[in-house]
Amino acid sequence: MSNISSMSHDELLSIKKELQAEYDRFVKAGKKLDISRGKPGNDQLILSKELLNLPGDAPTFVDGVEAANYGVLEGLPSARKLFSEILGTKPEQVFIGGSSSLSMMFDTISKAFTHGLLHSEKPWSKLDKVKFICVVPGYDRHFAICESFGIEMIPVLLLDDGPDMNMVYELIKDESVRGMWCVPKYSNPDGVSYSDETVRKIAAMKPAAKDFLLMWDNAYCIHEFDGEFVPFLDILSECEKHGNADMVFEFASTSKITFPGAGISCFACSEANMAYMKKIISKQIISYDKLNQLRHMLFFKNREGIMAHMKKLGAVLKPKFDVVLNALNEEIGPHHIANWYKPKGGYFVSLYTMAGTAKRISELCKGAGLVITPAGATYPYGNDPNDSHLRIAPSYPPIDELKEAMKLLCCCIKLAAVEKLLAE
Amino acid sequence: MSNISSMSHDELLSIKKELQAEYDRFVKAGKKLDISRGKPGNDQLILSKELLNLPGDAPTFVDGVEAANYGVLEGLPSARKLFSEILGTKPEQVFIGGSSSLSMMFDTISKAFTHGLLHSEKPWSKLDKVKFICVVPGYDRHFAICESFGIEMIPVLLLDDGPDMNMVYELIKDESVRGMWCVPKYSNPDGVSYSDETVRKIAAMKPAAKDFLLMWDNAYCIHEFDGEFVPFLDILSECEKHGNADMVFEFASTSKITFPGAGISCFACSEANMAYMKKIISKQIISYDKLNQLRHMLFFKNREGIMAHMKKLGAVLKPKFDVVLNALNEEIGPHHIANWYKPKGGYFVSLYTMAGTAKRISELCKGAGLVITPAGATYPYGNDPNDSHLRIAPSYPPIDELKEAMKLLCCCIKLAAVEKLLAE
Repeated sequence: MSNISSMSHDELLSIKKELQAEYDRFVKAGKKLDISRGKPGNDQLILSKELLNLPGDAPTFVDGVEAANYGVLEGLPSARKLFSEILGTKPEQVFIGGSSSLSMMFDTISKAFTHGLLHSEKPWSKLDKVKFICVVPGYDRHFAICESFGIEMIPVLLLDDGPDMNMVYELIKDESVRGMWCVPKYSNPDGVSYSDETVRKIAAMKPAAKDFLLMWDNAYCIHEFDGEFVPFLDILSECEKHGNADMVFEFASTSKITFPGAGISCFACSEANMAYMKKIISKQIISYDKLNQLRHMLFFKNREGIMAHMKKLGAVLKPKFDVVLNALNEEIGPHHIANWYKPKGGYFVSLYTMAGTAKRISELCKGAGLVITPAGATYPYGNDPNDSHLRIAPSYPPIDELKEAMKLLCCCIKLAAVEKLLAE
Repeated sequence: MSNISSMSHDELLSIKKELQAEYDRFVKAGKKLDISRGKPGNDQLILSKELLNLPGDAPTFVDGVEAANYGVLEGLPSARKLFSEILGTKPEQVFIGGSSSLSMMFDTISKAFTHGLLHSEKPWSKLDKVKFICVVPGYDRHFAICESFGIEMIPVLLLDDGPDMNMVYELIKDESVRGMWCVPKYSNPDGVSYSDETVRKIAAMKPAAKDFLLMWDNAYCIHEFDGEFVPFLDILSECEKHGNADMVFEFASTSKITFPGAGISCFACSEANMAYMKKIISKQIISYDKLNQLRHMLFFKNREGIMAHMKKLGAVLKPKFDVVLNALNEEIGPHHIANWYKPKGGYFVSLYTMAGTAKRISELCKGAGLVITPAGATYPYGNDPNDSHLRIAPSYPPIDELKEAMKLLCCCIKLAAVEKLLAE
């Protein structure tokens, strides 16, 4: 097959027939395939099997605390220390919560609305308008939280080294712009890591809103699957250097490390924010599940332990990403009808198809039994202005199914491109 | 010692000397004692030890769901079924959450403020005033949630068969009265269970507020320590019978059954409320910790299993309540200077001392190393109008320490009464 992007009308008509026939065979095969969510596969879960027997006979009285009873709102000292070593913060800046960092993000914003943040003049529910900067493409669940609270989302493009900071610096002059979502390492979905320079520019922001909330979702902070661990700046101390200590809340969890939904999560923030938040959280809960914190500590032991575990997970993930990248390379590459990132960590492959075809591809996939993240989902209000972006999540399906899914996806990408070119 | 309440001035002076000397010996002994919080003791925790090895080698794929991965927001079907059997609701009315029912209560009220409830015209944050009926004495953490959200609390007296419903019926004519806290069985702190008649009166309320929120904290629903399980009405179907299906949220947890802070919790509500809440909660979390739900299901197996476990816990608690009640009976009974309830379940003994002495007793206890719940804590804003109520939590200390604590407490009760009588 020659290059679709430079075919004549007749060539397009003929290739369309071939592609349509191939697509029809997929429909007829009637498979059920899914590359939609960044959900660890069973081949990853099994690597944490030991957790299922813990704490077992190990003492539950640890760090001077009975993990099986109420108490210690901010979590087991050893778990706080572990996350501080991962994130580069101080242990006293870390709060260990329940099983979900998404919950902590939702709750942080909820508290901004009901109680206000440390430097808020009033709760956000009393404001006429709250706007957030949303780096795009981004994590659909971040955007869903904004929509749920009626926060107006302003998209800012993710460049190769992080958000377009010229635009960000412009936007934060508006006092109603109260916050910003960032996934600084292996961003969801592009897999792009912010450069140190960009991180420093973010830490140095001088927003008009005194209670500006930098939501730093470090979901993939140690999630390399290709190559060695890549160090990153501690956003807390960077913000502090610029007099912005209280501007940022950082989030992390073991959801993509041990068991999704049954791991442990944390937020990290300045000591002043910690004191402020603990006062409110102490009305919400007596203490989080410290037995699960203990379970994870017995499993990981320390930072070395968790990094060794990440290597094992990476070895499972790498071949899956290779399947996706090789398929795109071989099937789509020669046709110049799409671009994609080649991530070395995180959970996604971000694909930019010919403008105006993403929704059509999504529809074609669905028609043949392949579930992919809906086109546009990675943009606020589901609105991808170019109708070009698709997010591929390779982690969950077994390799064989992933190969099938990619064959089908590539067929749909080509078919949609041909349809588009013929219609022009 | 004769009866303090009928002593002459001289007799009081002489007994005061004796009591002061006894008190001074306690101070000198310098013990650290605590009967302040309804926290299970180690002798209870050990009965759930088996949980620490679970799920072990048992399959984590149960009820058609992989418990170790994301999914099923409302919880494992088997866990929903178990709680529905305990509460008398339908399984589809039960949502299994994380480790804390307090968190679910806080969150329900928080969502009323940020999003509004199913029948709210607008979120409560847009209202000038939100008031709640607080049955008194009650649970300090309920009141703390109200204070945190700026909800005005209106105390309503708990009678021997439940809240004073004449007063409640009067108060709900005010549209700004938006909710009510109830602990219907073995109430915290009195240990009083609402009569069926009172429960039906509550279910039949016609509040002016269309989005009235009945917070039904069934924390001690199966927590008998003396005698057989006492059945209770299902508040959901009672409300439904009176056209109030969407008025109530019921809460329960295993915090006082297995491990406090590391158990599982639930709310139960109408199907319409469930659909409404799930829509919001789906933005807050992907799914709760289903492995811990599985762990609890493997441990309990079914309703019979949990009821048998409650018998074991009761056998540990009963002697502790006996220590408290016997001490009060022997040391305080003859003096007619206090009254108390004799609960058959729950976690507390509620003590009504001579009016105007509770704070003084609290102070005396503190001075001699005994931590008790601060006087007034069981009333909104910490304001016990009679300065008479004290809450005793017998569960946590070992029997010997509890005996010591009760000796000291009884000495303080008498000393404060004598001081008061002398000052009159």
